[in-house]
Amino acid sequence: MNDHRHLERVNDNSLYKALGIKLTAFGGGAAKSELDAPLPVQWPFEGQPHGGILFTQVDTTLATAMLPDLSGRFSCATIGLDIQFTRRAQYGPFVCHGWTTHRGGKIGFGNAETRDARGEIVVVAQGTFRLIERTSD
Amino acid sequence: MNDHRHLERVNDNSLYKALGIKLTAFGGGAAKSELDAPLPVQWPFEGQPHGGILFTQVDTTLATAMLPDLSGRFSCATIGLDIQFTRRAQYGPFVCHGWTTHRGGKIGFGNAETRDARGEIVVVAQGTFRLIERTSD
Amino acid sequence: MNDHRHLERVNDNSLYKALGIKLTAFGGGAAKSELDAPLPVQWPFEGQPHGGILFTQVDTTLATAMLPDLSGRFSCATIGLDIQFTRRAQYGPFVCHGWTTHRGGKIGFGNAETRDARGEIVVVAQGTFRLIERTSD
Amino acid sequence: MNDHRHLERVNDNSLYKALGIKLTAFGGGAAKSELDAPLPVQWPFEGQPHGGILFTQVDTTLATAMLPDLSGRFSCATIGLDIQFTRRAQYGPFVCHGWTTHRGGKIGFGNAETRDARGEIVVVAQGTFRLIERTSD
Repeated sequence: MNDHRHLERVNDNSLYKALGIKLTAFGGGAAKSELDAPLPVQWPFEGQPHGGILFTQVDTTLATAMLPDLSGRFSCATIGLDIQFTRRAQYGPFVCHGWTTHRGGKIGFGNAETRDARGEIVVVAQGTFRLIERTSD
Repeated sequence: MNDHRHLERVNDNSLYKALGIKLTAFGGGAAKSELDAPLPVQWPFEGQPHGGILFTQVDTTLATAMLPDLSGRFSCATIGLDIQFTRRAQYGPFVCHGWTTHRGGKIGFGNAETRDARGEIVVVAQGTFRLIERTSD
Repeated sequence: MNDHRHLERVNDNSLYKALGIKLTAFGGGAAKSELDAPLPVQWPFEGQPHGGILFTQVDTTLATAMLPDLSGRFSCATIGLDIQFTRRAQYGPFVCHGWTTHRGGKIGFGNAETRDARGEIVVVAQGTFRLIERTSD
Repeated sequence: MNDHRHLERVNDNSLYKALGIKLTAFGGGAAKSELDAPLPVQWPFEGQPHGGILFTQVDTTLATAMLPDLSGRFSCATIGLDIQFTRRAQYGPFVCHGWTTHRGGKIGFGNAETRDARGEIVVVAQGTFRLIERTSD
């Protein structure tokens, strides 16, 4: 199965649909996503997704970037994530780029930045992740 | 208007309703909230809200804790927030307690922890906030 | 050997001496330390230790708090640490209190706060640590 | 006075000398530094500067990157900084590169990474800074 189909499958979940997150690229220890947040989570300002939604985009994008492949054999869990909101996020859709800075045996490290439709950075983030390999039954 | 009515008003927004967040107490530089996340944001594991939803609870609770009162005259914007996921969040509802560690003229600092229904810490967080006072027109 | 003697041994190292750090208490997943920074690291303001020295105090105190005992069998390495400087650190000595929020098999989580001689919080921090058990040869 | 002379002046302080930090480049919202840590702060492992020393390098490099110029008219104070230790720092000297991701009127945001002599990332960090302009007397 190619990466495109994998992305379709990965994107087919209730969380991403509820918040408007869509992974658009994956490979080489990196991932990209787009956020087109629905009206209910544009709060307290219409047109601006809440910071928690931008966090969720960063977290899911980074967690995907950590994976060796999208086969479903690997997953990961966030240990910690630090996020900074550099500018008001008022010009969507928002594109997040996450990449691995180091991948050890059990722990992975990644950085991300999210830009608005004008190309300005609205979010920077860095996180640590537990790397999990599912063993077959 | 008393604090209880203020909380009702503060809770009456589309974001909190979409994610299952409810502020339950406010005062003295602190705030409390409860998270009862709806099914779509329980992902990738049913029964467990995604980390981004737990982040949103922490962020909104801390931002509220920063306010001198709930009159609507004051608001704040997150500069940065660091979150750590100490345990799997599998026993809801989740109670978050946020408190101010320092409140300067323009910037406020706060810490938070979220516990599951068993009383175990599932999230610790700390953040910095821009303090905004709305001037009358 | 009792805890007091263990603390003496732990404090007897070149880093702590160079920076003026001294662990003063240990036990129950927590640790305390005092910082009396020497003149060269009071920069850019005399009387105020640089933020990096306050970080080092927090980091070493938290890393100690993570240990089951001070026998030397256990050690730990910082994965990540987030520090916030709530107030100018101008009234030393500075007392740091670090405590464990969760200790898993491989990863520990801890929070810390440092207060000045007036009792005001100057630093809050939280970190994640790899827990290492030295195996005998 | 040119930038080279400014760097010489900036480097001429007791903290940098005590810890082995030297700023090597500045301009365009970025700065670079080199760390050649003296023996006393190589602890607990000889040859490896303590994490607190790597933090101090990152913090001072980022704080410098935030400045519009090195005239001494501008300074800044760290609000918060998140640091992750991706690899053991065993091959010095260590080169840190810090850059501005956003510079507002009062608050600046920056990211940094530090590499060892082999070119591997040993530290990633991001921080927020209060921007201070010294007014003439």
